[in-house]
Amino acid sequence: MAFDAVETPFGKRDKMLGGSASHFSLSASFFTDVRIVGVVGGDFSPAEDAVFANHQIDTTDLERIPGGKTFFWRGRYDYDLNTAHTLDTQLNVFADFKPKLSPESKASRIAFLGNIQPELQKEVRDQLQSAELVALDTMNMWIEISREALLKAIEGVNIVIINDAEARQLSGEPNLIKAARKILSWGPSALIVKRGEYGAAMFTAGSYFAIPAYPLESVFDPTGAGDTFAGGFMGYLSSQPEMDEAAMRRAMIFGSVMASFNVEEFGTERVSRLTNEEINQRFSEFKQMTHFEEIPFERAVLAAQ
Amino acid sequence: MAFDAVETPFGKRDKMLGGSASHFSLSASFFTDVRIVGVVGGDFSPAEDAVFANHQIDTTDLERIPGGKTFFWRGRYDYDLNTAHTLDTQLNVFADFKPKLSPESKASRIAFLGNIQPELQKEVRDQLQSAELVALDTMNMWIEISREALLKAIEGVNIVIINDAEARQLSGEPNLIKAARKILSWGPSALIVKRGEYGAAMFTAGSYFAIPAYPLESVFDPTGAGDTFAGGFMGYLSSQPEMDEAAMRRAMIFGSVMASFNVEEFGTERVSRLTNEEINQRFSEFKQMTHFEEIPFERAVLAAQ
Repeated sequence: MAFDAVETPFGKRDKMLGGSASHFSLSASFFTDVRIVGVVGGDFSPAEDAVFANHQIDTTDLERIPGGKTFFWRGRYDYDLNTAHTLDTQLNVFADFKPKLSPESKASRIAFLGNIQPELQKEVRDQLQSAELVALDTMNMWIEISREALLKAIEGVNIVIINDAEARQLSGEPNLIKAARKILSWGPSALIVKRGEYGAAMFTAGSYFAIPAYPLESVFDPTGAGDTFAGGFMGYLSSQPEMDEAAMRRAMIFGSVMASFNVEEFGTERVSRLTNEEINQRFSEFKQMTHFEEIPFERAVLAAQ
Repeated sequence: MAFDAVETPFGKRDKMLGGSASHFSLSASFFTDVRIVGVVGGDFSPAEDAVFANHQIDTTDLERIPGGKTFFWRGRYDYDLNTAHTLDTQLNVFADFKPKLSPESKASRIAFLGNIQPELQKEVRDQLQSAELVALDTMNMWIEISREALLKAIEGVNIVIINDAEARQLSGEPNLIKAARKILSWGPSALIVKRGEYGAAMFTAGSYFAIPAYPLESVFDPTGAGDTFAGGFMGYLSSQPEMDEAAMRRAMIFGSVMASFNVEEFGTERVSRLTNEEINQRFSEFKQMTHFEEIPFERAVLAAQ
């Protein structure tokens, strides 16, 4: 959970609701019931609480430290919106955070381990004894400084959701197919690779699925796009009786749909007021923009006609 | 038409058949009858002629200058196979090339204007009075030094087939959707953008279609991938009675299939011995790796159950 200050070529915000848990849970809330585990400081106000309350997000496990301050990140994007330039990071209450799960959270069928120290991800994973599916995100810093702990955390999850640079760095393989095979060999049954404007891909032991990104004429603020993708993906999966390959493919589309809305405005502003109709509309557009008929070609056959 | 010398981390060739016309025509020959317009020197041997003869490619309009030498390119790829490092370019007979079209070529229903001076592309286009569909490729050099002539050539074609960097450079728009709208405003009804390992996209006034690339564990030699894509695309289209959007979408897949084979070995080596069965197999894999079911989501509906 975070407060973000973001500046882009299109405008700025000095303090807005952000962080992996915010973006993920808001996105997932359109599809399923969500509980947040996280920590905030005394600066977390009723306005922020209202965002979660409005989306029926359960914040029972959101630890509050009245004398502390919420994690703060300040960043800037230039016209190349692919790269965030970090200007300031204040860990604040996040520095000593130990996730504490209520019995209800421990009983979750499905869980997402947002980007945090891998040791904490593993601790949380170990408490989810009845989870059918657990996914994990991480970042370049943990791959560099906590590689061993990260590999242990990855061993214990079903799905790894990272971007392509992270997949290459984590595996040491520049080729993404080889990278995927290596990461899957550590335990997870699926690797999902986020490729920004190029879409996303899912690798399993026996299948490959790839989708383009929703075409956007202007990206306003990419902060949180990855977590919003994960929220749509996991939220949709959670709503499905069978979390099989077909459901995961649809979940990839819903994740991409949610991410495409997220980047249209600052922070959580666009997703906060989304409707199911808008989500379904864009899901349907994904079908239109990827559909082709499967008609094999035989020159010999045609020539003989 | 060219001789290429290529060095990659996986091996090298000192002199092999190359050039836009070779890669394009070989690829297209699997789908339709093809005629080449081009020029070669006295160093063009029966071995090269045999490649075209074996694929029923008509070389009537391939001009031969016995006292001259064929265009020669020497390049190197490092482990990042996305970038070709040009070590030597010898224009030779290509320097004074003026395309000369036989009556049969002038009567073509469909034509591809490979990468060459835009003035020559326009000259050829103007001779194709009965063409239903003409496509054009170009490169960064012509966008820089012959922009006005290139815009005139683009005005006269139906489809522009370029890579994403070229689309951005040509339009002056970093956003690809805006770039596409601008290029389409100049006359073409479709823009096809090749994105290398990320696949390809097609823009028309009213539609967007995007596909991933075929996932390859090792790319051996990317030389000619773009022309091989164009050959599969145009060749397949040419085989179809209706060159409508649905046919163009399938053509994009066949183009990607052909390009994926091309990069598996040096030069034209892999495509030269391809079979229809292999092409159809990979086309079918494209369907598998992009398919998802269109099932809209309604949380409200589910919650009420």
